[in-house]
Amino acid sequence: MEINGVEIEDTFAEAFPIKIARLLVTGATRHWAYVSANEMTGFGTSVVGCPAEAGIECYKATGNPDGRAGYLVQICHMSDKALETQLIMRVGQCAITSATAAVFNAMPEENTEKMFDTGYKERFFGDGFEKEDELAGRKIWRIPRMDGEFIVENSMGIADGVAGGNFFIMGKTQASALMAAEAAVDALWDVEGVITPFPGGIVASGSKVGSNKYSFLRASVNEKYCPTLKDNDEVESNIPEEANCVYELVINGLDEESVKEATRVGIEAACTVPGIVKISAGNYGGKLGKYKINLKDLF
Amino acid sequence: MEINGVEIEDTFAEAFPIKIARLLVTGATRHWAYVSANEMTGFGTSVVGCPAEAGIECYKATGNPDGRAGYLVQICHMSDKALETQLIMRVGQCAITSATAAVFNAMPEENTEKMFDTGYKERFFGDGFEKEDELAGRKIWRIPRMDGEFIVENSMGIADGVAGGNFFIMGKTQASALMAAEAAVDALWDVEGVITPFPGGIVASGSKVGSNKYSFLRASVNEKYCPTLKDNDEVESNIPEEANCVYELVINGLDEESVKEATRVGIEAACTVPGIVKISAGNYGGKLGKYKINLKDLF
Amino acid sequence: MEINGVEIEDTFAEAFPIKIARLLVTGATRHWAYVSANEMTGFGTSVVGCPAEAGIECYKATGNPDGRAGYLVQICHMSDKALETQLIMRVGQCAITSATAAVFNAMPEENTEKMFDTGYKERFFGDGFEKEDELAGRKIWRIPRMDGEFIVENSMGIADGVAGGNFFIMGKTQASALMAAEAAVDALWDVEGVITPFPGGIVASGSKVGSNKYSFLRASVNEKYCPTLKDNDEVESNIPEEANCVYELVINGLDEESVKEATRVGIEAACTVPGIVKISAGNYGGKLGKYKINLKDLF
Amino acid sequence: MEINGVEIEDTFAEAFPIKIARLLVTGATRHWAYVSANEMTGFGTSVVGCPAEAGIECYKATGNPDGRAGYLVQICHMSDKALETQLIMRVGQCAITSATAAVFNAMPEENTEKMFDTGYKERFFGDGFEKEDELAGRKIWRIPRMDGEFIVENSMGIADGVAGGNFFIMGKTQASALMAAEAAVDALWDVEGVITPFPGGIVASGSKVGSNKYSFLRASVNEKYCPTLKDNDEVESNIPEEANCVYELVINGLDEESVKEATRVGIEAACTVPGIVKISAGNYGGKLGKYKINLKDLF
Repeated sequence: MEINGVEIEDTFAEAFPIKIARLLVTGATRHWAYVSANEMTGFGTSVVGCPAEAGIECYKATGNPDGRAGYLVQICHMSDKALETQLIMRVGQCAITSATAAVFNAMPEENTEKMFDTGYKERFFGDGFEKEDELAGRKIWRIPRMDGEFIVENSMGIADGVAGGNFFIMGKTQASALMAAEAAVDALWDVEGVITPFPGGIVASGSKVGSNKYSFLRASVNEKYCPTLKDNDEVESNIPEEANCVYELVINGLDEESVKEATRVGIEAACTVPGIVKISAGNYGGKLGKYKINLKDLF
Repeated sequence: MEINGVEIEDTFAEAFPIKIARLLVTGATRHWAYVSANEMTGFGTSVVGCPAEAGIECYKATGNPDGRAGYLVQICHMSDKALETQLIMRVGQCAITSATAAVFNAMPEENTEKMFDTGYKERFFGDGFEKEDELAGRKIWRIPRMDGEFIVENSMGIADGVAGGNFFIMGKTQASALMAAEAAVDALWDVEGVITPFPGGIVASGSKVGSNKYSFLRASVNEKYCPTLKDNDEVESNIPEEANCVYELVINGLDEESVKEATRVGIEAACTVPGIVKISAGNYGGKLGKYKINLKDLF
Repeated sequence: MEINGVEIEDTFAEAFPIKIARLLVTGATRHWAYVSANEMTGFGTSVVGCPAEAGIECYKATGNPDGRAGYLVQICHMSDKALETQLIMRVGQCAITSATAAVFNAMPEENTEKMFDTGYKERFFGDGFEKEDELAGRKIWRIPRMDGEFIVENSMGIADGVAGGNFFIMGKTQASALMAAEAAVDALWDVEGVITPFPGGIVASGSKVGSNKYSFLRASVNEKYCPTLKDNDEVESNIPEEANCVYELVINGLDEESVKEATRVGIEAACTVPGIVKISAGNYGGKLGKYKINLKDLF
Repeated sequence: MEINGVEIEDTFAEAFPIKIARLLVTGATRHWAYVSANEMTGFGTSVVGCPAEAGIECYKATGNPDGRAGYLVQICHMSDKALETQLIMRVGQCAITSATAAVFNAMPEENTEKMFDTGYKERFFGDGFEKEDELAGRKIWRIPRMDGEFIVENSMGIADGVAGGNFFIMGKTQASALMAAEAAVDALWDVEGVITPFPGGIVASGSKVGSNKYSFLRASVNEKYCPTLKDNDEVESNIPEEANCVYELVINGLDEESVKEATRVGIEAACTVPGIVKISAGNYGGKLGKYKINLKDLF
């Protein structure tokens, strides 16, 4: 199968269950909402070594509970307990501290599996000066701080989401693969419910489980996708002759449908860029992940 | 003392020793260097609840070891061991994974107290395909990844730096205090060796040690600086009559001189904004911190 | 009438007919689409002294004729002929020259009053090497350039639109009025069909027709809205006691409805910011403009 | 000659005299200074079809006359008279109108050939309420506006500068050439006194004087540098076999030395990007331009 002359490999992306919190972070202006959302979702590419996977979903200009500009963010972890701690820490350290920020639950009711009382716990920071209130039909806390009040919703909904949706972009040059990956991330602006947690939404370093040489490692480079090892005798390279660079998009989403839609929209955008040779996807032969997203079924 | 009609309180900022790593993160373009630097320094406002304090110092366009655009970043922690882990994780998760990123040591020799072999440890990700090399007189590793090679310097210098330099900006409105705080952060672009780790460089929630009401808390709101509690009978407010909002800049730096210079430059910038009533600073009566920065000595 | 404690003056904005072109400017990525859109709409605040009024409407991530990221822009002028020249110059100098840019007509059919053959005229730049083609049902030209081909739609639709929709924001401090104005501009992201052509979407200098002192001037300061002249004996100030700063949003749109909607959404956003005293609007007593937008009718 | 494996053609860039104004545009914060500078320099790629050539030189955080953040901008024209009009219009329409903006002369004394009394002329907008004053040793005008006062320096220095410094980047893919061009623009941040007036600093459409086919054209496509015409029998292509895209940087500067330095720094940055085949430069055989910049003499 081809899109715009680019080969779409007949393979599938293997994805996994993950627990997701989806928050709306508002601010006095779009800029200040972004500052808070950006700090909250930093150091959050992969639970392999980050305390959470996190990312900004999109801008939400109007219709927010406090009538201000906001960004939707997702914070994800395999473990319920770790996710709850991350919510407390990321809201407490990156939103309570952030100029004009407020935080609301943004998980759709139909996705909500359970509620964490994050706001209830944050309110103790107010040392008794905090007040319960209602805003736009939501139970909130008004916690005094130096710039006025920090408003936080009492409870945050948690979904059984999907992590690790993915596709690979193989380009003739590093720059063409990167431009295509960026175009793919830019297109996801229109897909609801997904984030791409890696830096700029893009992964430069694919990995395999464990290591052939260093037994102490949990993960190491996936040499089959390294262009500098294409001609190495020890490596069975998966990179086509013409390609000299590979980038991966990793997609987390509230459900399988949103991850599929993001994969479709992202691949179509990537294929508009000149110099793209092939689109593929990462899987473990279907042995590990619960979700299989066949690329060719998307189009 | 007054600057531009704004009262500078006769007080001092109390600051503390901290361990600092200073890295140069480069990329194919300024944008991609920024993407990496931003992810590496996220979720890094305060060691109270974040795994590190971290921030971007400034843009470095030319003269870098690989001839590409870069950003200087600082990662800080009280504990040597925690700092070393944070370096490994933040470089491993946020730079190895990040499109076109490379990482070099940027600690000046005169500040360096010890070296961490962060690059040496990251290199195992290469699973034996990594290669030692030299670049611009530095010992580096070339680690294969999907977009080519990740270059990382073998060792990173650690300084005995200064954390918690600070000043308060009190404004007639929330927006005037915030504009002044932003102007102060913008001016620090020209001060070498400092970061402001909080979101957008600014703290909205001052805290006191412990809590009067909830014994399980390590820190709670500093009610004396909350405008909504100015007229509360339980609170001895430190906010002047005319002021309705307070923001704080918290400054970490490689040494006391750079933190002092940042305090001076930041205060002068803040005082250019209309509607600022007073500049103050936070201290614990001089009992805890090793460094005392008298505001009036700066001018 | 009050919104969030802010007085909405019982007055109206007076707006005028204007000719509008609405273009979709696409690029390889969102960034490059923005670069083109930004250059095309610069030096375009007001036809009083700029060759056109121009602005970016919003980001359009997907669904565009070439499948790439785009920005909607509007270019406006009172005169048909001047507008046509501006289209040719701004497309020719700021899009043909701009990396990866393409330009399509984005005027809805129901608003289109006439068509300009801008693309047909630009095609001569190809010196005979250009080719007519069809893309997504549109007649386009493929013009060779150094980075491949510049694609431009043959004809651009022109609407009889509305210019000069406006409202004033009066704040206690300069910063609070500016934060409210920025919040208003940020909210317009969700309103289709409008631009705010002044820098950052905001006007800092209201003017009156002519001048009392300098007969050679077409326009001069509207002293009634200058805070530094509040207590000047020669001036009958319109600024309330408590206010110290005024900003204006000027809104152009495809029709009266979109300008009204933008006025409503913008005022609501402005009123979320602390320190706003009053919202008003500018008119000439209804003698000049064809459109009258009563503020109180909007809510 | 080669840099980093990239061929540097043994040719020269031909550059021309131009009149340049260099202004410092300040604002309450870096963001607002940028908003003004960006609007003032828009629709300013080339005097062929824009009313001026204009661009942002760099950010200037501290040391400015009003103590606020600023951007240096250049506005250029062949004709004295046209330049003076452009200064009046761009300051009047894009800075007087822009929130918190102020404008100062930033032409170094040693480059100044003459002075325009731009500030003196803008002051009439104050309708008699404006006041002459002195700030940091400069003669300025304080003109009342809605957000306070617009400060503008009385006179602006004009230099006999250099326009049309240039080099070409030829890449294997569109994206590699664009990444290299962006890297080159990013590196110029450190070169004083230069701008790159085209969108994002980059030219996608090289042109030749006149047209072979359409006699009414002043300029048309330079088909020798169009990748889609490489195999066209009518075209003697200058594009190497391996290359599929060409971008040009056009550099204006206060003097020949700054344009040379920018050319050198830009080429070195471009050559760090993978997939670049060749660097060349544009000239008219030395018949037209006064300045000849030999590429090989730069290194």
